[in-house]
Order: sequence, then C-alpha cells, then structure tokens
Amino acid sequence: MTVERADFDMAIELPAFEPGWVWLAGAGPGDPGLLTLAAYSALQTADVIVHDALVDERVLRLARPGARLVHAGKRGGKPGPKQIEISQRLVEFARQDKRVLRLKGGDPLTFGRGSEEAEYLVRAGIPFRIIPGITAGLGALAYAGIPATDRRLNQVVTFLTGHASGDAVPDAIDWQALAKSSPVIVIYMGTKHLPRIAELLLAAGRNAQEPVAIISKATTAEQSVIETVLGAAGKAAAHAPTPAIIVIGEVVRLRAGLDWLGAIGGRILAPDQLGGSGANREAG
Amino acid sequence: MTVERADFDMAIELPAFEPGWVWLAGAGPGDPGLLTLAAYSALQTADVIVHDALVDERVLRLARPGARLVHAGKRGGKPGPKQIEISQRLVEFARQDKRVLRLKGGDPLTFGRGSEEAEYLVRAGIPFRIIPGITAGLGALAYAGIPATDRRLNQVVTFLTGHASGDAVPDAIDWQALAKSSPVIVIYMGTKHLPRIAELLLAAGRNAQEPVAIISKATTAEQSVIETVLGAAGKAAAHAPTPAIIVIGEVVRLRAGLDWLGAIGGRILAPDQLGGSGANREAG
Repeated sequence: MTVERADFDMAIELPAFEPGWVWLAGAGPGDPGLLTLAAYSALQTADVIVHDALVDERVLRLARPGARLVHAGKRGGKPGPKQIEISQRLVEFARQDKRVLRLKGGDPLTFGRGSEEAEYLVRAGIPFRIIPGITAGLGALAYAGIPATDRRLNQVVTFLTGHASGDAVPDAIDWQALAKSSPVIVIYMGTKHLPRIAELLLAAGRNAQEPVAIISKATTAEQSVIETVLGAAGKAAAHAPTPAIIVIGEVVRLRAGLDWLGAIGGRILAPDQLGGSGANREAG
Repeated sequence: MTVERADFDMAIELPAFEPGWVWLAGAGPGDPGLLTLAAYSALQTADVIVHDALVDERVLRLARPGARLVHAGKRGGKPGPKQIEISQRLVEFARQDKRVLRLKGGDPLTFGRGSEEAEYLVRAGIPFRIIPGITAGLGALAYAGIPATDRRLNQVVTFLTGHASGDAVPDAIDWQALAKSSPVIVIYMGTKHLPRIAELLLAAGRNAQEPVAIISKATTAEQSVIETVLGAAGKAAAHAPTPAIIVIGEVVRLRAGLDWLGAIGGRILAPDQLGGSGANREAG
C-alpha cells in the first residue's frame, strides 16, 4: 500500500515533477523514515531512478511500480560507471522526456559529487532541482545519541572526507590547524585512513584519551557503534563495518546519557557521565 | 486533506508514537517538503507540539487537528521561556501521558540545544526518540545553489555558531586555525557579528576577495541571497533579513552555474564561472 502523491500536493504544495527534468535528491543515511517528503514524492513519481550503492534497499522499494531502477554505484568492490558516464545517462534519460530521479545516499551536495552532476546538467541545458537530504554525518550522530554540537562543549563542528582522490589520505587538509580549530571532527569514508589521520591529529596536539565513535551502517537495522579513544582509534577502525562515520571529540561522551536507540533496546542510560556539567544550564 | 499515517506505517514501518514519549525532531530549514517522513508522521500523531519560532508556519499547519501547539521560542524580540522551563514542560506533558513532539527548526542536535533537552528527559526518566532534520546550513546552501563540498575545491567544511552565550562573538573559537583548516565556513546566526568575524578571518590570512553568500529565510518563499566578498561582508550583513546562513569560500562561485531555484524563476545560469575547471573531471 502506498501513499497517493496527490495527498501530499494538497497538504504541502510540493512542486510537480515534470517530464524532461532531473531531480537531484538525497535519500538520507538509510532509515526510510529520514527521507524528505519531497524525495518520497519523487520516488513515487519518477520514471527512472538512478541511484548509488549507498541508497538503502528499503528506500528503493518505495519507487513507483514500473519505475526503472538504474544502479550507478560500485558493486561488491567492482568499480561502477565513471562519474561522467552517470552524468551522460542522466542527460539521455531527460532528453527522452523521462522524469529522472538521481538519488544519492545522504545529501547530494555534501561529499556527494552532486555539484559536478548538476554542472553537467546545466551545460546540457537540462532543467533540474536539488532536494537536500539528511547528511550521513548528522544522521549517524543522531542515531548514535551523539550531538554534533552541545553549547557546553563546542561552537564549531567540522566535516571532512577521509578519502581523497587516488585513494590517499586527504593531503590538502591542514591537520595542524584542524586539530586546533575544531573540537568536534566528523569524518566521512574515513575507516581506511583512520590510523594515519589519528596520528596526524595526535601529532598536532590532540589528546590520545579523546573519545571517538565509529558508527557503522548508521540508521539501518545493522547499525553498530564502536566507542574508543583517539590513541586506539586506528586499530579499532579495522574492525568497523562500512560505510562508517567517525566522530572525534568530547561530545562522544554524551552518548552514555543520550543513546536513545540503545535505551529502546534496553540499555541503561547514564546521564551523569558529563560530571559536574549540570542539566540545562542557562546561557549567561 | 491529509495523508493517513497508517499508509506510511505499512509502506515504511515508522515507529509508533506512544503516549508518554517525547520525540525530539528537526523540522528542517522551512520548506515543508524538507520535513522527514518521520517528522511528518509525528506531526500527524502528536497530542502536544512544542515548537520554536524558527519552525515554519506551513509546517505547523500539518499538525493533527486538535493537537495543542505550544510556542517555546522568542517572539518579536521578547525573550521566550528559558531553556529549563521548556524542558520542564516537556516532562510535564509526557507525565500527563501525552505524545509530545518537540519540534525545532533545522536539526535538533546541530546548534539546536537538543542535547540539553534530551539530557533533561533522561534525568526525569521520560522515554524519547531523536529525529534528525535537515540542518539549516545545508538546506540553505542547497536552495541557494551552493554545494557544501565540491571535490575540486574543498575536502573540509566547517559549521559554527556566530552567536555565543551572552551575545558575544564566539570567543572559544581559534579563528587563526580555522582560517587555515577550512576552505568553506558555514555560519549560523552570524549576521550581527559578521563584521568582527570577517575581520578575524582577514587578520588570519583569508582573502578579502573571497566570495561570501548570505542566505536569508532559506527555503521559504521569502528566500533572498546576498553575494559579496569577505572584505565587504560585514557591511552587507547589516542589510540581510534574518534568520540567515552565511557561507564563506570558493564554493560560493559555483552558484553562478548552479542556482537552480533562480533558473526556475528565469535566471540564466553560467556554468563556466569556474573557468578552466572542466565538467566532471574524473578522480585520479
């Protein structure tokens, strides 16, 4: 049983998905409940859905019956189509007057290469729309019970990719400066290079006892979380299933009190983990 | 006309919203189409909805008829209830066996004080769930046609609040390090202090010609975008309606090609703004 798209239109005035258009949408981190209404509506309307490997199977099951599903990601370690080939296919489908949904895991414009695909569409004269999604980093933290920010602990949070072009540790990053500027660091695609990244952060003065969480398969039924410290994180990452989001910083300690998903599963929460912080202090 | 929640349950197995529970949910940046299915379903089920000023009116209209709406934000410059009072009310409603939806603009755990409210619930023994939302920073950038990341330009993006406790420029931030570590900086609640923030970044070596966008009332019908440069951003911010998201970095230039919302309104896109970058270059 599926929801009629017309119902949404009346309630919230979603834009119409016109033939010949590409909607470049984020599917969020996995849980279908984290799809936006706009992305859901697009799934129910699209003629062709070009999706990454990171888009959850349960999300794809929401596609309109009869929609064509095109897998554009890597499969089982084999390389998928090249970026330019994916962009070309989007243009071809649009020129066939299809409603083309380009569905990416997380948010299309955050470590998602969405800007390159959009640029290709612009050059080809294809009309398009961008639907942001819940980025994997924030979705993973929320489902692990770790706030990205807590005003008692951090005014800054930094997102970075742990996997640069050419399979290297991101070399354009000033790790020395990063270690000083951002109390909380969220790393996408970082398990492989975490030993080196942790080393760089420690060399830049971060504390070996600083808490780290590695959140695997976030927001799915197979979600698992490894809690460790920076000095041991590199080794711990070797055992983490992927995809994984890594978070480094004192906010990780709050998980002891805020792991709501664990609590639903029977885990006892320990809200006093923060020690003398007190609850709900007012801003001065 | 509204969608029956039962339809969603069958299609995507959303969790049941039980009486006596608090769901701490993000409403996203404004556009109701950016609500998650989980937040939408909660709106359709909750007995009490405690919301911030930043939650869009169109979102609140999706509440179940008969639901009690409680405004917990500032109104017209007057201070709203204190944080601790809001937390206490959530507990009271939950103890009355209500389904309590605590709805915040954007994402509850990203500059949203959600962790403090959740901690209060834990201490009071109230069961809760967290529903992440599209954070205002990423929603605003997407609707302005500015990617948070583009692998040709940045591997790092930093979010920060431009408004610390006590109405000061955030003093715990190492601006010198930040200027070096993060090519793209996204600032929440930053218009008031942007003159000082720009000064600090320039003193730390950022370029006065670096592009800046100030995105006001993002994803609403009143969205407006000021494009400027770092050397002039402080003055420009004085004219920007609030709430506003500020983004500093070369990714802002991509807007000339990617402003899809402007294109829908008739703006001519200029995909070649990036110059010799070429379209869809492959990673090496």
